[in-house]
Amino acid sequence: MTRVAVLGAGSWGTTFAKIVADGGADVSVWARRPELAREIAESKRNSDYLPGINLPRSLRASSHLAEVLDGATQVFVSVPSQSLRENLRQFGDLIPADAVVVSLMKGVEKSSGARMSQVIEQELGIGVDRIAVASGPNLALEIAKEQPTAAVISSASLDTATAVALTATNPYFRSFVNTDVIGTEFGGVLKNLIAVAIGIVDGVGYGENTKASIITRGLVEMTDFAVAYGARAETLSGLAGLGDLIATCESPLSRNNTAGRLLGQGYSFSDVIKQMNQTAEGLASVAPILELARAKGVDMPIVRQVGEVLAGTLNPRDIAPHLTTDPMPQGE
Amino acid sequence: MTRVAVLGAGSWGTTFAKIVADGGADVSVWARRPELAREIAESKRNSDYLPGINLPRSLRASSHLAEVLDGATQVFVSVPSQSLRENLRQFGDLIPADAVVVSLMKGVEKSSGARMSQVIEQELGIGVDRIAVASGPNLALEIAKEQPTAAVISSASLDTATAVALTATNPYFRSFVNTDVIGTEFGGVLKNLIAVAIGIVDGVGYGENTKASIITRGLVEMTDFAVAYGARAETLSGLAGLGDLIATCESPLSRNNTAGRLLGQGYSFSDVIKQMNQTAEGLASVAPILELARAKGVDMPIVRQVGEVLAGTLNPRDIAPHLTTDPMPQGE
Repeated sequence: MTRVAVLGAGSWGTTFAKIVADGGADVSVWARRPELAREIAESKRNSDYLPGINLPRSLRASSHLAEVLDGATQVFVSVPSQSLRENLRQFGDLIPADAVVVSLMKGVEKSSGARMSQVIEQELGIGVDRIAVASGPNLALEIAKEQPTAAVISSASLDTATAVALTATNPYFRSFVNTDVIGTEFGGVLKNLIAVAIGIVDGVGYGENTKASIITRGLVEMTDFAVAYGARAETLSGLAGLGDLIATCESPLSRNNTAGRLLGQGYSFSDVIKQMNQTAEGLASVAPILELARAKGVDMPIVRQVGEVLAGTLNPRDIAPHLTTDPMPQGE
Repeated sequence: MTRVAVLGAGSWGTTFAKIVADGGADVSVWARRPELAREIAESKRNSDYLPGINLPRSLRASSHLAEVLDGATQVFVSVPSQSLRENLRQFGDLIPADAVVVSLMKGVEKSSGARMSQVIEQELGIGVDRIAVASGPNLALEIAKEQPTAAVISSASLDTATAVALTATNPYFRSFVNTDVIGTEFGGVLKNLIAVAIGIVDGVGYGENTKASIITRGLVEMTDFAVAYGARAETLSGLAGLGDLIATCESPLSRNNTAGRLLGQGYSFSDVIKQMNQTAEGLASVAPILELARAKGVDMPIVRQVGEVLAGTLNPRDIAPHLTTDPMPQGE
């Protein structure tokens, strides 16, 4: 029986723990707060993050890292992306020597632009063949309700990806594998920016034609960017790119969508920041991603227009990147 | 000033007439029913098909074909796809000798499997350089409300596509061009089948993860099919493939969606046919498309599962083509 540790008991960490437990693994979850660990362990509930969801009876939980990590051969990490480096410095030594470390996070480190798997590599000093990432169209609450979902596990090592995918597969959750870690991770980051654009046009009151065009063009921008940084184009056409993009853009609960919608309704960037309790990853990523795009000469008209709306220099009503890109090109 | 005839005054024909009139063309619409022609010409309304929409003041309309076609250099055709051949036999002689004929229709002829542009070529006996097709994420009512929309005009002749695209461009509607007529037309046909699958999972009660996965995999099936018949893969990744697919799958008004939703809720195929006044193109296309796919050795697991639901041999709750395709392949 595979012994699995999940670090982080937010909605996604807890859902992933359920996924692997329902796949037959022996799973322990680390929650920072002892009372949350106790609720998961004893009541098999996480009422703050997954209200109404019954967790597997076999699921263990603790606020003691050493206990959770003891004997784990696969360690899934789901902490806030901006605190990953700091967390790994604190608990990296407790991770068993041969364990595979899997990032469940979608984001880049603001200060360095590093992807989550790069932060793991740098801080733990382990080989890329022991690192994997999970991504895909994976709204946590739907999976917690056992709706049929597909995901992608990516690692430089196909063996590692396959081993993790076998752990992360059960009757309602199916993991596919690839070896394009760069494309898989950037897909999860870039879709948030396009989701903000979708939120903006939603707030303005436009419908499905506009949104479908922006998603279609947005995928081209995502692909151009990721390929410039070494990704394979196919990865972006798959579940970790297009799939995640569609699920995020169509979810009315997405923070990025909500932030965009408020902008589209005429609130300023600072109003939106004040109004939302949680940060919207997409808003914070606009500037760093545009800078990385410029460095490689990649044109991202949709993300650029989102940046202009954030800066207050473009009226949200005038956002229409799908109408204004290059004059009458051949193809699309 | 370009003189344009639009044949057919349903919601799409009328909307397209508005698009080109708002782009500056001199436009006349043919409506079969004199009272509808009169309403468009005199009241600048089409209250049956576009309630509440004001049509351009310059728009002319008539139930006399010769009057509408007189002097037209571009003829846009929007009649039911199964009656196109019969219609062209009736009024083909009235089309001016040098006019370009543009299909606004999305469908294949059931009896022959022919695409609409092929029916036009066969019945009018004109060169492919005088034939074009329009497609893309184009829900009529949204465009009639002047929401920013992008489309694709395709013709074997780039000059013809460009001329038509210039006519079909205005401040809220932008036409891009390509020369891949096969891909552009098949995109518009195949997306209806995937929309039925989306409707089914909607009816069962599944959410955005499931739908995003099916759209992502569905695009692969659409692309494999179209490429086997001579299309370019890029066309399916663009507005006429992915863009149209997303808009159709997300539109709650789509007939294909509705038909699928009823199937997902447990109604039988024959119940659905009885319950819906209008035909759902997607339902009727399943069998012929699967036959065409088999002829080229193309695997279409989503369309196949839709066929099994229609046949009553698969419980809609078990439809999950994104979980059941090839066991653990590399990539997605």
